[in-house]
Amino acid sequence: MSSEPAPFRVGLLGHGTVGGAFAELLSERASEIERFNGRRPTISGVLTRSRGNFEEILAQSDLIVEVMGGIEPARDYVLRTIKAGKSVVSANKQLLSQYGEELFETARKQDVRLRFEAAVAGAVPVVRVLEESLSATPIDRIHGIVNGTTNFILTEMTQGSTYADALAEAQRVGYAEADPSDDVSGRDAAAKMAILARLAFGTPVHLGAERRDGGLSVSVHPTFLYSGHPLAAVSGPFNAITVESETITEITMSGPGAGGRQTASAVLGDVVSVMTGGARPPAPPLALPFVGDIESAFYLHLDVADRPGVLASVTQVLGEHGVSIKSVVQRGMGDAARLVMVTHPVLESGMLAAIEEIGEFDFIRSAPRTIRVIEKEFL
Amino acid sequence: MSSEPAPFRVGLLGHGTVGGAFAELLSERASEIERFNGRRPTISGVLTRSRGNFEEILAQSDLIVEVMGGIEPARDYVLRTIKAGKSVVSANKQLLSQYGEELFETARKQDVRLRFEAAVAGAVPVVRVLEESLSATPIDRIHGIVNGTTNFILTEMTQGSTYADALAEAQRVGYAEADPSDDVSGRDAAAKMAILARLAFGTPVHLGAERRDGGLSVSVHPTFLYSGHPLAAVSGPFNAITVESETITEITMSGPGAGGRQTASAVLGDVVSVMTGGARPPAPPLALPFVGDIESAFYLHLDVADRPGVLASVTQVLGEHGVSIKSVVQRGMGDAARLVMVTHPVLESGMLAAIEEIGEFDFIRSAPRTIRVIEKEFL
Repeated sequence: MSSEPAPFRVGLLGHGTVGGAFAELLSERASEIERFNGRRPTISGVLTRSRGNFEEILAQSDLIVEVMGGIEPARDYVLRTIKAGKSVVSANKQLLSQYGEELFETARKQDVRLRFEAAVAGAVPVVRVLEESLSATPIDRIHGIVNGTTNFILTEMTQGSTYADALAEAQRVGYAEADPSDDVSGRDAAAKMAILARLAFGTPVHLGAERRDGGLSVSVHPTFLYSGHPLAAVSGPFNAITVESETITEITMSGPGAGGRQTASAVLGDVVSVMTGGARPPAPPLALPFVGDIESAFYLHLDVADRPGVLASVTQVLGEHGVSIKSVVQRGMGDAARLVMVTHPVLESGMLAAIEEIGEFDFIRSAPRTIRVIEKEFL
Repeated sequence: MSSEPAPFRVGLLGHGTVGGAFAELLSERASEIERFNGRRPTISGVLTRSRGNFEEILAQSDLIVEVMGGIEPARDYVLRTIKAGKSVVSANKQLLSQYGEELFETARKQDVRLRFEAAVAGAVPVVRVLEESLSATPIDRIHGIVNGTTNFILTEMTQGSTYADALAEAQRVGYAEADPSDDVSGRDAAAKMAILARLAFGTPVHLGAERRDGGLSVSVHPTFLYSGHPLAAVSGPFNAITVESETITEITMSGPGAGGRQTASAVLGDVVSVMTGGARPPAPPLALPFVGDIESAFYLHLDVADRPGVLASVTQVLGEHGVSIKSVVQRGMGDAARLVMVTHPVLESGMLAAIEEIGEFDFIRSAPRTIRVIEKEFL
C-alpha cells in the first residue's frame, strides 16, 4: 500500500540520435520533474525497427513520444495513440506539415494534447510561443532562419567560400548530410515554415502549392537583411525566428536548430507541458486566402557594357514596371562595368517583368541577378 | 435556453496605460479567443482608485488581472483572489519579486494558476519559456537586458552622447520617467532578474541581499559583450534574455520590453493560457546557496604618466592577484598616456584588490575604470 503517485509512463517510438538523447535526458531530469509535477516520468517501452510492439507500448503508456521521422508508420502510430485517448509529443516536421490537419482534428475530437515543439527550430521555443504567448496577438509576418545547414553555408559564403567548399565544410563538421538535397533545396525549411504559418495564421499550407490568389504568402528563399535586423547576426548552424505584429512590434527567438540533445530537450519540455495540462491542439483551420503577388524590395546586380545610355535604359524599363530605385552604384569601366541597385518594395510580378525585359538589352553581359531584401520595418 | 458556453469573466484591477490597453485588446481579440477556446473572454468589472469594489468584482469573475502596480493593495487583492480559488494574471514585478514565495505557495495550495509573463521584459515570453519549455532543462546561466531605459541610454552613449544628454533624450521620447531613479539605479532590472533567477534556479532572491556565500550569483551591472554575442545587437529600448545550458547551448529571446499594448499582449496571452489550463505555479523553493565571489573577465582603463616601468608595475600587481591579461593596448605619450587591458576570467575579489593597489601608484592620473566583460562561451 503505497501512497506514491503513479509514474507518468512515456512510450518512445524511435531510438536514433534524438530518441537516445531523450531517454538519457529524461532519466537525468526525472527527479526534478517529479518535484515540480508530483509524478515521475519513466520510459514504459521503446519501439525501434528491430524491437518492440506498438500496441503493447501504447497499452502501458500515458503518452507517446514519436521521434521516428518519416510519414509511415509514424502517422499510423500517432493516429492510433490519439484515438486511444492518449497524448502525443512528436518531433516530426514531415508528418506535421503534411498531415497536421488530420492529426489536429483527431486530437481536438479526443481532447488530447498533441505537442510538436521540436519539429521546428529544435530547442528554440517558437511553437509554444505562437500557440500560447501570442495566441491573443494578431500576427502580421514571420521571418525565420529555420535550416541550420543552409545558414551555415551562407555564413561561410559571406566570408569568401564558394558554395561547393562551404557545403563540403558543412558535411565535414556534421551540419550537412552526405545527401544534402533536403536542406539545400529548401524542402526542410518549407516544411517548417508551413507549420509556423498554420500556427500563426490558422491556414493550412501545402508544400506543393505555396501561393494562390488573394491574403497569405509563404515562401522560402535567400534574402538580404539590413545589418540591424535581429536575424542578421544569426550565423552558422543557429536558427532564429522573428514574429512581427502591430501589437508587439517584433519578438525574435534564436538558438540551436538541431542536435540530438537540444532537440531532446524540446521533446522533454513538451512532455512536461502535457503533464501540467498544456495547450490544446490548434483551432480548426481558417480559409485565409493566399496572395500570389506580394511586394518585396530587391537587390539587382547587372553586368553591363559601360557605354552612354545604359543607366537611362535600365531605369526607364524599371520605371515602366513601377519599380522605384532606392540606391544605385556603378562600378568598373568598359566591358567590366557593373550596376548594383536596391529597389523600394515593389510587386514581384512587376520586378520579374522588368528583369526579363532588361535581360534582352544587348549591353547586358550576363543574366541579371536579383535577391529579395528585407527592409527595416520597426524601430 | 441558450446552449452557448458561459463567457470567461475577467476582473480588471487597474486601468492605467496597461489596463486600458488590455481592455481594448481583449475586446478586439475576444472572437478569435472564443474560436480557439470555446469560451468568450469578457471584462466583468474594473477597479480603479476612484471606482469599483474589489469583493464585488471578485465574486463576478473567473480570473483577476492585476495591473495596478505597487505592493499594497495589490498583494492583498491577489492573495484574496487566490484564496477564493480563482486564478490571477499579474504584470507586477515589485509584487512578484518581493512576495513571490507567499503568492506561489498560496496558489499551489489552492491549485490555481498565477501567471506573470508581463512582469519581466514585456512581450518577450521569457517567463513562459523558463516555466515550460525549459522546465526539463538544467540551466547554467541567464544574461539579460531587462531595462529598456538604461539600454536606450547606453546605446546613445556608445554613439557619443553624454549620460546627461542620453537621459534627457530618453525622457523626451518617453522611454524614461521624469524621475528615472528606479531604472537608472538598477532597481527595476534587479526585480526582474530576481524573478528570472527564481524560475531558472528555484531559489528565491531577495533584492536587499543579492549575494551570499557558496552556488548562485545574481547581479545587475553594465557589461561589455563580444561583438558576436546575441545580446550585443540589442539596442535602444529593446529587451533580450539569453538562457545558457549545457543541454541547449543557448537560446536568446528579444523584443519590446515595455509599452502599454505590448505589455497588454503578454497579459492577454497569460489569460488565454489560464483558459487552456496552463502551467502550475513554480515548485517550492530550493535552498541553492549564493556565491559571494565569482569569476569575470574585466576591461581595465588606466590614465597613466608615460614613463619607463609603468606597464611592468601594473602587470606585476595584476599577476600577484592572479589576474591574467588577455590583451593590452597603450595609447598616447607623456601625461596623456592610457593603458587599456582586457583580462581573462578572474575572481572578482582578486581583481578588486589589484585595482585598489594599482590606484595607489604615483603614475596613475585618475581613478582606474573597470567594467565586466562577457566572453564568448559557445559557438
